[in-house]
Amino acid sequence: MRTAIIGATGYTGLELYRILSRHPGVTITAVTSERYAGKPYSAVFPSVQSARGLLLESLDRDAVADKADIFFTALPHSEAMRVVPGFVERGKYVIDLSADFRLSSPETYQRWYQPHSAPALLGAAVYGLSEINRSAIAASRLVANPGCYPTSIILPLAPFLRDGLIALDGIIADSKSGVSGAGRSLKVQSLFCEASENFKAYGLLSHRHTPEIDEQLSRIAARPVSITFSPHLVPINRGMLSTIYLTLTEPMDSDAVYGVLQRCYGSERFIRILPPGTLPETGWVRGTNFCDIGFRVDNRRLILVSVIDNLTKGASGQAVQNMNIMLGFAEDAALDQVPLYP
Amino acid sequence: MRTAIIGATGYTGLELYRILSRHPGVTITAVTSERYAGKPYSAVFPSVQSARGLLLESLDRDAVADKADIFFTALPHSEAMRVVPGFVERGKYVIDLSADFRLSSPETYQRWYQPHSAPALLGAAVYGLSEINRSAIAASRLVANPGCYPTSIILPLAPFLRDGLIALDGIIADSKSGVSGAGRSLKVQSLFCEASENFKAYGLLSHRHTPEIDEQLSRIAARPVSITFSPHLVPINRGMLSTIYLTLTEPMDSDAVYGVLQRCYGSERFIRILPPGTLPETGWVRGTNFCDIGFRVDNRRLILVSVIDNLTKGASGQAVQNMNIMLGFAEDAALDQVPLYP
Amino acid sequence: MRTAIIGATGYTGLELYRILSRHPGVTITAVTSERYAGKPYSAVFPSVQSARGLLLESLDRDAVADKADIFFTALPHSEAMRVVPGFVERGKYVIDLSADFRLSSPETYQRWYQPHSAPALLGAAVYGLSEINRSAIAASRLVANPGCYPTSIILPLAPFLRDGLIALDGIIADSKSGVSGAGRSLKVQSLFCEASENFKAYGLLSHRHTPEIDEQLSRIAARPVSITFSPHLVPINRGMLSTIYLTLTEPMDSDAVYGVLQRCYGSERFIRILPPGTLPETGWVRGTNFCDIGFRVDNRRLILVSVIDNLTKGASGQAVQNMNIMLGFAEDAALDQVPLYP
Amino acid sequence: MRTAIIGATGYTGLELYRILSRHPGVTITAVTSERYAGKPYSAVFPSVQSARGLLLESLDRDAVADKADIFFTALPHSEAMRVVPGFVERGKYVIDLSADFRLSSPETYQRWYQPHSAPALLGAAVYGLSEINRSAIAASRLVANPGCYPTSIILPLAPFLRDGLIALDGIIADSKSGVSGAGRSLKVQSLFCEASENFKAYGLLSHRHTPEIDEQLSRIAARPVSITFSPHLVPINRGMLSTIYLTLTEPMDSDAVYGVLQRCYGSERFIRILPPGTLPETGWVRGTNFCDIGFRVDNRRLILVSVIDNLTKGASGQAVQNMNIMLGFAEDAALDQVPLYP
Repeated sequence: MRTAIIGATGYTGLELYRILSRHPGVTITAVTSERYAGKPYSAVFPSVQSARGLLLESLDRDAVADKADIFFTALPHSEAMRVVPGFVERGKYVIDLSADFRLSSPETYQRWYQPHSAPALLGAAVYGLSEINRSAIAASRLVANPGCYPTSIILPLAPFLRDGLIALDGIIADSKSGVSGAGRSLKVQSLFCEASENFKAYGLLSHRHTPEIDEQLSRIAARPVSITFSPHLVPINRGMLSTIYLTLTEPMDSDAVYGVLQRCYGSERFIRILPPGTLPETGWVRGTNFCDIGFRVDNRRLILVSVIDNLTKGASGQAVQNMNIMLGFAEDAALDQVPLYP
Repeated sequence: MRTAIIGATGYTGLELYRILSRHPGVTITAVTSERYAGKPYSAVFPSVQSARGLLLESLDRDAVADKADIFFTALPHSEAMRVVPGFVERGKYVIDLSADFRLSSPETYQRWYQPHSAPALLGAAVYGLSEINRSAIAASRLVANPGCYPTSIILPLAPFLRDGLIALDGIIADSKSGVSGAGRSLKVQSLFCEASENFKAYGLLSHRHTPEIDEQLSRIAARPVSITFSPHLVPINRGMLSTIYLTLTEPMDSDAVYGVLQRCYGSERFIRILPPGTLPETGWVRGTNFCDIGFRVDNRRLILVSVIDNLTKGASGQAVQNMNIMLGFAEDAALDQVPLYP
Repeated sequence: MRTAIIGATGYTGLELYRILSRHPGVTITAVTSERYAGKPYSAVFPSVQSARGLLLESLDRDAVADKADIFFTALPHSEAMRVVPGFVERGKYVIDLSADFRLSSPETYQRWYQPHSAPALLGAAVYGLSEINRSAIAASRLVANPGCYPTSIILPLAPFLRDGLIALDGIIADSKSGVSGAGRSLKVQSLFCEASENFKAYGLLSHRHTPEIDEQLSRIAARPVSITFSPHLVPINRGMLSTIYLTLTEPMDSDAVYGVLQRCYGSERFIRILPPGTLPETGWVRGTNFCDIGFRVDNRRLILVSVIDNLTKGASGQAVQNMNIMLGFAEDAALDQVPLYP
Repeated sequence: MRTAIIGATGYTGLELYRILSRHPGVTITAVTSERYAGKPYSAVFPSVQSARGLLLESLDRDAVADKADIFFTALPHSEAMRVVPGFVERGKYVIDLSADFRLSSPETYQRWYQPHSAPALLGAAVYGLSEINRSAIAASRLVANPGCYPTSIILPLAPFLRDGLIALDGIIADSKSGVSGAGRSLKVQSLFCEASENFKAYGLLSHRHTPEIDEQLSRIAARPVSITFSPHLVPINRGMLSTIYLTLTEPMDSDAVYGVLQRCYGSERFIRILPPGTLPETGWVRGTNFCDIGFRVDNRRLILVSVIDNLTKGASGQAVQNMNIMLGFAEDAALDQVPLYP
């Protein structure tokens, strides 16, 4: 199968290249960039010298549509919704990594972003949290790949929501992200000297990932859920950790909590439930598609801790996992990395 | 006045040296270390070449007691309680940076640490949170210098507890500390390759700073308070940030919250209330005794965010502030640093 | 005395503020910025909340010239030479931190930068390497503050050049700089994710600091010197280390080398000659105006190693040192920082 | 084939596990550790949860010798030479990652380390610089895997030495290493707070890798070569860069230098010669077995710059490459990683 990376010169674009270039079932046939069109991909990212022959091209939807069967759109929100419909109309497989197709309601999208230019597609897009929506993803042609924060929060919460084990009020997710989550665009706060030897909170009570999280949690709980979500910036390149505070409806002990997680995820390739007493670290999943989950419980107080690599399971890795599901490849094809530690 | 640093070769010891060596009212007359006794202080910490003539000595309580009037004890817990009584008996001023005199009850101490060898002194020690206990500190000869985590949590909470503005149940402090908080001792988790490009939670529901926090908050609230405290490790040398989740008893807006903080701390030299909309970053207080406090409020949900330099306001800076209060120096003597940014 | 910081919103501008705000003999009366004009200085740099009342203003040379007696120009090269002449004509003291007045020849300047718009001033400017040109600085109204790389290279070399102890051919300076040397402007290579967990060389055989280094070394040696200068980028905020490879004309031992350095710099406040066997680290001078020098010698092979904080001795600290010399303040006024370690 | 990792709980041990666990031709059948014997490998390194069933065992040479055909010894020097002979006598394949078998002369070994306990094996061991000694490695049963510094220095130098293009006197290699090069043992200088936001030189004119470098360079040049080698410590986990200063016997231009490198390494899988004008960065090879080489030339001055991942091409990756050569596997089996950037 031929694949194209639309918007290939950001960090998620490069991460897609890293993974897809080792995939036995696909070939990268096009990479696009407005800014660097005409240059070899290896001139923008010299780490991939193997891509010397791959030229970046400006996005001409017709031309590029002929070149590939599967499209990964790694564009900023609002740009994605302008190009995705064209690929969908041509019957292509599309995995969109932006926020544009993650919310089911155009009104909600408009409230947090701007008016939506392709509202009709919102209903067709499947939310690509692989372990939660696997069968719908398998039947879909358009997957809205989840945000990194939502992935790190929804995966650990889902089993407890489904089984009705926790109070729906007062859920708090205190999340911490590496700097690559802000992308490769030029912002003062992304400068080395601003982020290094520094730590901060941002977007409290107002981050755009909040409606995405609430919508998915509500769907899983089959009741309205609205959480408090607090993002923070950690001076690391890759990695995301969410500390999630819950109140159990009935007291549980460690074994019981472990059992809930294990029953839900025990057979999953990319979710690792850590033994009671072990809390995950972002370094343990570096460069992989794993989500590691640990916890601590005391009577009715339950704290879940999850870690992912924000560029892999939080973006491009899960995107490839979704492609594997859509197209019937082995779900871990090209995703069998061992964590790079240290 | 002559001062001694007992346990001078850890990071808090060095930070005491950094501050005290610029203090107009005191002279450092003794520095102790068992491991490096006999060496010049500058051989252990070459950054302070000015200390070439200052020799580290083994702790002989009688000998060292003759050399100074003020003692900063920067020893591990359980070691401090063995040497502090001797200095107190001799009528010296003692500021202890360990955990040994922070809890008022020997039973609580024993539950979290071990049996206490000087329980009689627990009642005499004043908890040295400068802005909260200023007058008691001024009248004291033995100050138990607060832990870094408790400082970062109690200072922002105090005004709301005092005025009864928040629910006492369900308070959560999600705290993040730089690596210097673990000291200079050799542990695998303190190695560069373990901490760098990594982030983790630890000690959830079981950290030893919890009883200290609860005791002080209960005193301020005049009612029992027990919070959920979650420490995390950030790959920075210095800096600590606490994100504190509260439920207001009545809805408040930003101006009202700002007013509460400003009324309590508006005239404090070392507490900076940030304007509404601004959240603090650890880098903004680097190398200083400041505690910066910001917040975000939505109806009854209030999130406070505080930052300190864990080695300064979180340890040695506050210790010197307490000395200044005890001895009638200007409270900011030797503490007038401007943050080192970047 | 009233001082103005022209171009106050870069890192050297902020470092000037950090130092000058504690200077007993001067008051900061103006800070300029085109981009942030009208904003409080504390809005750009919230670490200095004390500067809430200080408003950034657009650079109107006449207006600002009335406000101060001493001008620190911290502008990009080519902009500095357009504003400095106006201040000089008005009889102001000017310390220029750009490259615009460091080279004595307009032709050399043009070859490495562009045509010079104020060539007449090149002869009037004194090269502000404080320890080398102290008396000329004291008599000057216009000081060209040295680059960070040249400072770290010329200081250790000068004693050996003066005494004719080394071969003038084949000198190599392999230098490593922290990221703040690139300033606060938005460049991809200054992003956290590009610089962190990364290391590189750049500008080999072509860096613009080379003619500045060669001119000063030639002046000291009284013969033409041309070195090989290789800059590298280290993932730290502050700090610069130069490893300098020399061939002695006659073999020397450690004591002899130490003697040469000690005789030259033994009484200097800001140059610390480390004892034989000790090599300096950038962390040992963090936040200070020190230059630490160590070495290793074997027969005729001599390696000098120097460290500075590139923003302090490498820029704003030395600028204030020069102001102190020009105006007769104590040379270490406002520069008595103790290194911030760790 | 069955493989054992002797000394599996250091960073090179873990890196061997990372690579070998994806190798199609081998199975890891034993991992040893004195300190953690009895524990699951995943308890020491939770990043490899897949290793939950693999138990660490104490090194009993007879017992472990029965369990594997290929032995990777990742022990400290002086320990390796005590266990390697036993494996060699049993006819096993041994790749030793210590310094114990890298020098051909027991006298040299003794001068830099201590008396050698298995001097007879020194002649039998092949120096495992894969691209240089490929055929000898293929015929060997005992490979002395090169040090990381020597790998980064010898590879770029070899083509110029072989062709007699450079002066043999005055070669300088200024090298910079990430902290993982110091291993996982507990040393003050390896603590996060000592290495982070810091940079230093160490071991100037006295580092133990010097005789290894000189011996190999002399062999390649077929004449005695003795270089100046200067190691530095960079605050990164992984990565090594060497800046190498040479004098050409005749002037060359960029194309000629590029041609020399390309002719020598153009068909090598793991050596990437960068186009003229491009200098390598350590991040470009992170997690891979690549050695990237760039350069800058001006008349007779030539500067070569090489980068490797010190744990991969500098240790465990090259060790697996050597195993592949010894046993006839594809040379890049299990070594087809794409760099992890950022």
